[in-house]
Amino acid sequence: MTSSNPYNSIQPVQWKNDNLFLLDQRLLPKIETYNEYSDLKSIANAITDMVVRGAPAIGVTAAYGIVIAARTRFTESAENWKSLIQQDLDFLANARPTAINLAWAIAKMRPLIDAQQGNPYDTLLNTAKTIHQNDIENNVKIGNYGASLLGHCSVLTHCNAGALATGGYGTALGVIRSGFAEGKIEHVYADETRPWFQGARLTAWELKKDNIPVTLITEGAAGWLMKQGKIEWVIVGSDRIVANGDVANKIGTYNAAVLAKHHGLKVMVAAPTSTIDMDTLSGNDIPIEERSKNEVFVVEGNQIATEGINAWNPVFDVTPASLVDAIVTEKGIVENPTLEKMQKLME
Amino acid sequence: MTSSNPYNSIQPVQWKNDNLFLLDQRLLPKIETYNEYSDLKSIANAITDMVVRGAPAIGVTAAYGIVIAARTRFTESAENWKSLIQQDLDFLANARPTAINLAWAIAKMRPLIDAQQGNPYDTLLNTAKTIHQNDIENNVKIGNYGASLLGHCSVLTHCNAGALATGGYGTALGVIRSGFAEGKIEHVYADETRPWFQGARLTAWELKKDNIPVTLITEGAAGWLMKQGKIEWVIVGSDRIVANGDVANKIGTYNAAVLAKHHGLKVMVAAPTSTIDMDTLSGNDIPIEERSKNEVFVVEGNQIATEGINAWNPVFDVTPASLVDAIVTEKGIVENPTLEKMQKLME
Repeated sequence: MTSSNPYNSIQPVQWKNDNLFLLDQRLLPKIETYNEYSDLKSIANAITDMVVRGAPAIGVTAAYGIVIAARTRFTESAENWKSLIQQDLDFLANARPTAINLAWAIAKMRPLIDAQQGNPYDTLLNTAKTIHQNDIENNVKIGNYGASLLGHCSVLTHCNAGALATGGYGTALGVIRSGFAEGKIEHVYADETRPWFQGARLTAWELKKDNIPVTLITEGAAGWLMKQGKIEWVIVGSDRIVANGDVANKIGTYNAAVLAKHHGLKVMVAAPTSTIDMDTLSGNDIPIEERSKNEVFVVEGNQIATEGINAWNPVFDVTPASLVDAIVTEKGIVENPTLEKMQKLME
Repeated sequence: MTSSNPYNSIQPVQWKNDNLFLLDQRLLPKIETYNEYSDLKSIANAITDMVVRGAPAIGVTAAYGIVIAARTRFTESAENWKSLIQQDLDFLANARPTAINLAWAIAKMRPLIDAQQGNPYDTLLNTAKTIHQNDIENNVKIGNYGASLLGHCSVLTHCNAGALATGGYGTALGVIRSGFAEGKIEHVYADETRPWFQGARLTAWELKKDNIPVTLITEGAAGWLMKQGKIEWVIVGSDRIVANGDVANKIGTYNAAVLAKHHGLKVMVAAPTSTIDMDTLSGNDIPIEERSKNEVFVVEGNQIATEGINAWNPVFDVTPASLVDAIVTEKGIVENPTLEKMQKLME
């Protein structure tokens, strides 16, 4: 299915030679290189350090990480590996706090560990590969569902919810890939997305690679872009969608949603159901990761701000359900999300 | 008056040794150095290249530039200097399109040139010095008027409308200096302001220098900051205010104003009446400068985005009067601006 799609050339997470390979997204777009991982701690650190980022990609990476942890622990002790691996699962769970897909992947793998008799490698690896393959297939479904909502339009996307942020194909960029393939999307505007420049470095690179026309803007220009009538939709991914339909996503998403509302434009959130956390009732209860102030102060290796001042660097925000026109998942579309509709989707 | 204010230590435009000195704002905050100018073309280029920026500072610089042009042209030909200087005035007028203070300064100096008998140097220099001194004094008035609108609060400012953007003291930062001196302002949040990072490089530096507590944020975090109830006011400067009260200012100002409105917060625009252009009826008629795409692609000397994509780099936007709670000038305050109120102010 996915190999025949011309807009799907990027695979950020790969399993090869019995090890995990991650496309180092910190070095894109200049350097396209894969790091090889054979131990859990390095994989968790790769998540923390954003070698790999994007909620679904973190989930897939975590699944493969558990395969590697189980192999190591089983080699260490065929008797005690189930006990030893608990600290690995805890360490992994704390790699980043906001994306729920990390906890989701651990929750998928844990019962298999508990039930396992003998060497867990094949069982866990098969499950990780299935999680990975399902993620890609789900993204294609999301893409097609999302595109079905579009008329002829141009769109703004924020951060990178692309192939790079997932097992492949992407969520928001999956919708954009499908919408472009169907001739509905004319042009894509990408917010550069400070402080990490995911839009400039990753989204622009991905879309260029797949020959989808993209114009980069600073986030400050988003409102002015909307005022000029240049777009009809804001399409973003999510790191966690909670029971009432509130959406955590990259800092700046909330700005874009408020601006869209002010201009009468539509907001689409594209994410697999692995991103949905029905145990958290409202966006107020989502832990928002704050990262180092240096991500704001230091740009491309240069300290740009004067010494001795403060910075605030929350890297996610929460867009309330009231600003979201549609949540698009592999199971279908939830328009104007509410608790009831989210419950129905997840039944 | 201004020398006794403890929050006024920065003078970006200086006349010394019969030449113009400009603090090179491209190098701040790392390097604090003044460039010396003795010819008009270099001064106009310094405006275009943003050695000096900020509408009032551009106006003051233009006035001194005309002094220097007149000196050069009078030396060239005591008979024909009035004719020769016309091309200088045209060249200067085109240095940047959006800030009306450039045209305002030329309009102030031109009648003096027309009326001049003999060597124009002393007359023009005295006028330029008066324009400069008045700008500083007006900013202190603006600061005090603006502060009178504040209760105990914290504020967000965008770009740099500080001492660096004016003859001294600042407009938006003038209000902040006065408000802080009066004990009303608790904390200042500064938008870093892409693509030129005026907030990170200039505003943070200025406020730190004057010991006013400042926290830097990415623009994407502004809405989330407001959602947390961290600020009560957005205070900005302007490059041109037109007859109906629409306000052109640094790209991203419109975002901040829409976000403020959504959160029930107030928006103050602080600017001298030299920024007011009653000949332009609405914001739709303000020319919006678009600068090089490289300002978006290239960050601190490094190309961050992939080659071959497009960028859109409008460097100003227009905030409609309906989103502005107060325009604060040296002549007084216009609340909820309309054409009628703006006409009354400018009578």
